[in-house]
Amino acid sequence: MPLPRTATTFSPPVMEARRWLDGISFPPERPLINVSQAAPVDPPPQALREAIAETALTLPEAHLYGPVLGLPELRAEVASQFAEAYGGEIAAQNVCITSGCNQAFCAALMTLTTEGDEVILPTPWYFNHKMWLDMTGVRAVALPTGSGLLPDPDLAQALITPRTKAIVLVTPNNPGGVEYPADLVAAFRDIARAAGIALIVDETYRDFHSQTGAPHDLFTDPDWDDTLIQLYSFSKAYRLTGHRVGAMIASPARLAEVEKFLDTVTICPNQLAQHAALWGMRNLGQWLAGERAEILDRRSAIEQGFPALEHDGWKLLGVGAYFAYIQHPFRRSSHDLAQAMVGTAGVLALPGTMFMPHDDPAGQRQLRIAFANIDRAGIGQLFDRLSGLRSALAPIQHSS
Amino acid sequence: MPLPRTATTFSPPVMEARRWLDGISFPPERPLINVSQAAPVDPPPQALREAIAETALTLPEAHLYGPVLGLPELRAEVASQFAEAYGGEIAAQNVCITSGCNQAFCAALMTLTTEGDEVILPTPWYFNHKMWLDMTGVRAVALPTGSGLLPDPDLAQALITPRTKAIVLVTPNNPGGVEYPADLVAAFRDIARAAGIALIVDETYRDFHSQTGAPHDLFTDPDWDDTLIQLYSFSKAYRLTGHRVGAMIASPARLAEVEKFLDTVTICPNQLAQHAALWGMRNLGQWLAGERAEILDRRSAIEQGFPALEHDGWKLLGVGAYFAYIQHPFRRSSHDLAQAMVGTAGVLALPGTMFMPHDDPAGQRQLRIAFANIDRAGIGQLFDRLSGLRSALAPIQHSS
Repeated sequence: MPLPRTATTFSPPVMEARRWLDGISFPPERPLINVSQAAPVDPPPQALREAIAETALTLPEAHLYGPVLGLPELRAEVASQFAEAYGGEIAAQNVCITSGCNQAFCAALMTLTTEGDEVILPTPWYFNHKMWLDMTGVRAVALPTGSGLLPDPDLAQALITPRTKAIVLVTPNNPGGVEYPADLVAAFRDIARAAGIALIVDETYRDFHSQTGAPHDLFTDPDWDDTLIQLYSFSKAYRLTGHRVGAMIASPARLAEVEKFLDTVTICPNQLAQHAALWGMRNLGQWLAGERAEILDRRSAIEQGFPALEHDGWKLLGVGAYFAYIQHPFRRSSHDLAQAMVGTAGVLALPGTMFMPHDDPAGQRQLRIAFANIDRAGIGQLFDRLSGLRSALAPIQHSS
Repeated sequence: MPLPRTATTFSPPVMEARRWLDGISFPPERPLINVSQAAPVDPPPQALREAIAETALTLPEAHLYGPVLGLPELRAEVASQFAEAYGGEIAAQNVCITSGCNQAFCAALMTLTTEGDEVILPTPWYFNHKMWLDMTGVRAVALPTGSGLLPDPDLAQALITPRTKAIVLVTPNNPGGVEYPADLVAAFRDIARAAGIALIVDETYRDFHSQTGAPHDLFTDPDWDDTLIQLYSFSKAYRLTGHRVGAMIASPARLAEVEKFLDTVTICPNQLAQHAALWGMRNLGQWLAGERAEILDRRSAIEQGFPALEHDGWKLLGVGAYFAYIQHPFRRSSHDLAQAMVGTAGVLALPGTMFMPHDDPAGQRQLRIAFANIDRAGIGQLFDRLSGLRSALAPIQHSS
């Protein structure tokens, strides 16, 4: 008897990791450092919260059903700002709003694939991408990236079969932190276009890219929408994680297909959330620039502090946007280590095994640190605790 | 080449119908009567809007990620109020919160089915149920209901095959309006249990049931969760359609599977919406009783006014909750009629063809009227306009 769809995939990693906290208490002088989920710990700025409250009170239609593909003003605002940022032609008809960026990914895949199809994902991958492919009967074809965490277009080319429907890039990368160079992204676009498949570029973390200006030039190609599907999230930029609002930029014909999925799964995105995102886009540009500077400063703190850990055998494989992706020096699997670190170090991080096929040994050595959740002082404490692990874990390491 | 998943289903009916309005203007003295979508036209009561604004301003975590399965307090409140209303044991662990009731349906189905499985849906069916089955490769097996719109358990029994994984009931019914008697629902539970399949009962419109007290006794069975999956929506009761918040009541083991789907598609339900629903459940009981009385009064207006239309050959097939499901007297298909009615009568309603397999001729004669959207005066005007259709459409009828 074939398994039902959810039985073909694993449990949500973030929820699994959260359960590792059960029964463990953290003394006030050494509270938990939670770098497991990529999530701002603070709510949106006061002005945005006031705008949300004002909308709830004064705009009746913010409480009622809206168009499946999203609030027309928000679609237009995304089109206009993204066209400006990427230097290409993007119309409101190229944009739809989704209930978070995960949903945008799911929707895009439903327009591209069916049972038995294949999609190429560089590894380490974003686990929810893998979960959706599992649940929809699509084979996730792993494209290992090696030590620099950059995917190789030639290797990708070699993995394409008649069942391949898309290549998915996440840049800046989750979990790897690395920013893909513009020419690398363009090379993937060329491969995808030549194969007649889609290139999905998930830019959830674009607002925290270290480079000023467009991170790639795909939109300057007038025919971009024959191949490119871009995904975006409002969650990180405006600290709206609890509001669930994301976006997809694609051809109008694809969005007509996307509309079927979104209508069936959620009818429309949360309206108040869309107004919040719109207000953020229109009013928080300067504030977001400050947020970006802060995240880039934390990234510097990681880069500056990491060499001290290297003496203990740790390696920094990638860093950027919200994440540091690191290699640990222990002889135990990253899954066991991450679990042990909760009690031993008061640190909750996700193991590399959560971002890999089970048969890829690389994941056993790796951890994802969502450093954006903690400030410079917190990063210092994190390094102290990781450094202390060596002595705390050594006995276990030798007995294993 | 097999089609991608969205290409295997139709476009969202409500959005298609909305496009029929393009280019048609409605004079101020005869505005459009829109009975196409089941949606309150007014926002939530002022006190609830104030509670939402207050939460946005004062509760930081209402803006941040929450648990995948929903706000613990809301899960507990649903469990407690439903246990009271249905007279059975329902724990918070039996409840999850979803981004609307459509998503609850999708999630339930993902835990039950895979490619090539079958699910039994009485017809007329709710189109989004059919769309989800199409998109996930599951065959929707139609169970025609005939003139009373009540499904026959024996007919359902005869449709069960080794691939059947669930029977779906919607009561009060969308689009039919009919309320399924308790013993009928129990008979379906018995059939489902004997076959080892799930019985999904979508009670989106339960708050507007004409009967006081529990509409069925399924929860009084201590083993209810071996078979029953109940779906609910907060959209209609508290006028929160734009907030996207629904619920599923099922076994904890099933909800652990549901968690995989919800995490992947939306990460968590909108947090502010969940606080709104919780506030509504705790504070709007009396207000909701008044809303129910108003909807029941509109239903009476339909029942009282309909006989005048019967002289023209119209038939009332079912009425209840938000809907009247009616048979028209014209020789054209309901799809053409519904489109023509926009210009001719200034009425937007959905044709029966949107709730049926294409090869079922019954849909050609039927229309769904979402009467909850209009008050008694509006219902009077609706009847006048439907009555006027006979002369307006007669020439077209004879020439076709």
